[in-house]
Amino acid sequence: MKRKNLMTPGPSPVPSFLREALAKEIIHHRTDEFRDILADVHKGLQTLLFTKNPVAVLSASGTGAMEAAISNLFSKGDKVIAISGGKFGQRWVEIANNFSLDVVEMEINWGDAPELKELKKILDENKEVKAVLTTLCETSTATVYDIENITKVAKESGAITVVDAISGLGQDKLLTDQWGVDVVVSGSQKGLMLPPGLSFISINNKAKELMEKSELPKYYFDLKKALAKGKNNDTPYTPAVTLVVALAAALDAINKEGVEARWKKFEKLAKATRSAAEALGLSVLSTSPSASATAIKFPENIKSSQVVKILRDKYGVSVAGGQAQLKNKIIRIAHMGWINAQDLISCFSLLEVALKEVGHQFKPGSSLVQLEEVIYG
Amino acid sequence: MKRKNLMTPGPSPVPSFLREALAKEIIHHRTDEFRDILADVHKGLQTLLFTKNPVAVLSASGTGAMEAAISNLFSKGDKVIAISGGKFGQRWVEIANNFSLDVVEMEINWGDAPELKELKKILDENKEVKAVLTTLCETSTATVYDIENITKVAKESGAITVVDAISGLGQDKLLTDQWGVDVVVSGSQKGLMLPPGLSFISINNKAKELMEKSELPKYYFDLKKALAKGKNNDTPYTPAVTLVVALAAALDAINKEGVEARWKKFEKLAKATRSAAEALGLSVLSTSPSASATAIKFPENIKSSQVVKILRDKYGVSVAGGQAQLKNKIIRIAHMGWINAQDLISCFSLLEVALKEVGHQFKPGSSLVQLEEVIYG
Repeated sequence: MKRKNLMTPGPSPVPSFLREALAKEIIHHRTDEFRDILADVHKGLQTLLFTKNPVAVLSASGTGAMEAAISNLFSKGDKVIAISGGKFGQRWVEIANNFSLDVVEMEINWGDAPELKELKKILDENKEVKAVLTTLCETSTATVYDIENITKVAKESGAITVVDAISGLGQDKLLTDQWGVDVVVSGSQKGLMLPPGLSFISINNKAKELMEKSELPKYYFDLKKALAKGKNNDTPYTPAVTLVVALAAALDAINKEGVEARWKKFEKLAKATRSAAEALGLSVLSTSPSASATAIKFPENIKSSQVVKILRDKYGVSVAGGQAQLKNKIIRIAHMGWINAQDLISCFSLLEVALKEVGHQFKPGSSLVQLEEVIYG
Repeated sequence: MKRKNLMTPGPSPVPSFLREALAKEIIHHRTDEFRDILADVHKGLQTLLFTKNPVAVLSASGTGAMEAAISNLFSKGDKVIAISGGKFGQRWVEIANNFSLDVVEMEINWGDAPELKELKKILDENKEVKAVLTTLCETSTATVYDIENITKVAKESGAITVVDAISGLGQDKLLTDQWGVDVVVSGSQKGLMLPPGLSFISINNKAKELMEKSELPKYYFDLKKALAKGKNNDTPYTPAVTLVVALAAALDAINKEGVEARWKKFEKLAKATRSAAEALGLSVLSTSPSASATAIKFPENIKSSQVVKILRDKYGVSVAGGQAQLKNKIIRIAHMGWINAQDLISCFSLLEVALKEVGHQFKPGSSLVQLEEVIYG
């Protein structure tokens, strides 16, 4: 009978109007009815991504679309730079290595965004870099990267930019075409308020030229086929029909509210979350905090996993702990998709209770006062 | 306001108790709650597949699991035989070619099952064949293959057998371990009564040995990772959570009814469907008809696509037409998953109406009499 509150950066909560869409009677995918829905999805994703480039919808979670980017754009031995400052930057490194690319890893501190000068230096030192692989919001550290300028720097060296926007899309600003971002990858289970199982990839003409030369093996994630079929609002293989139907409804709702209005909303929620954490005597991990999630650092004497456990088991609130080197050191609270101010108030109220239980000292209610002030003040 | 009746061999209808499961509040996948559900899914799939081998659940539609079989078991230049007597046999050929295997295509007439002698001959002529790639129910022709004996013949030559059971599983008999089938691939949207978006792959020890030697690139479909994580009821990447939750409910319902009882039920429905077609003066395409679907041949003077269109647009009934060389020549009616006798009665009643519209002559009601007789007689 316990009520639950999902505050993790993916899966994030699915609102009832979308859960109802998921429960609709299934339709066949080789029909005009489905093609009309997929047409709406394509348009809706273009609006959300601020792009006129085609967007392919893949029936796989986000990592599948990341693999699609690698296996469709490159060939064995192609040199790429992967910006790695967290678990998802590392994922680019892993995928690119698995497909035998020549990967230059630009390692940065977990919690920092990449320095443009440093990126420029690496690009200058490495000739014939085909692409910079990077991340809009590095979910493991809740850090937003400066995609606009990363793209600019990459372009100066003739490299394309491939962005994992899986957790950032919808909260962190991304102007695909205006910034000249060549490839953007995203997924259904974060800002789009849906269950996991769908991913997307937008591809501009420069990236399409690379696709023509790619010699890596692929089939399920063959983007040439996906884009060719996509032109007629069709898919090469059976798509995850119910998720596509619900995605049309999600995009309609998001685009009606307005992407830019939502960016502002989430920026404010992010700012409020940071203030609330600081009011509890905690600090924010990231030097470039994302609008999609906040990573809160814990003092040495408190294991964050203990607080995560209390929140989940005792109070039904799911927040994320730290991964890899950040294990036990942080908690991560999402403000994305369907999560709103009231969810944050509720979450921080219980975080205060849990922190008290583990002996952390702070002024009771202080985080809530900050949330109210930043959000409504 | 038109009521619809989905009689296609995938997606097939999703019953309301599963649509309700799909609409449940989403849960996080890195929790005991989800791991318990995935444990049930693993056990349920083993029961359905009659195997003690581990089964990996992949968040992709069936073609993704077919690719996983190829990219995880083989290396460039490995010789395989692909039995190709329809669109899905051809898919094995395409995937294996895309991954640079040395593919020997055993072409058979569309609508026939492979001759064991012919397979034996090809195996004898080709040394060092690593695997026979084949299909339980070739959906495009509604033909069931003799997997038990194909496996036996392959084993005599030291080759493993990899079976696409995407549309056949749950209706066409398959005793994975007893028959010694090495790898079985399936999907969620056919006999399992769910939307598309999940696929499964069971792997025995002999296939695992091949996995150790495979040098093809993979990441999202890396089965070593999937099986290692699967041991602890976990997944390498974010799974399609809601589909997994609904799958647990589907497997529970199917296994409670009993897989063998369901085989008998669908055999009877298939037999009834064939009798009904013949009563209308039509014939059955396949010389080895499946229990999952029936392909009905049309006389030369009637385009099957016209009948498909009338059924769909005027009466809300979706049946499948023919693909590729069978375009306009057949219709395919599914009897799988949630489809029952009443659905067939309703479908044939409207098929009679549509056939009358296109000028085909038959005794009105004759197909319904046959259905009643075979099913209830």
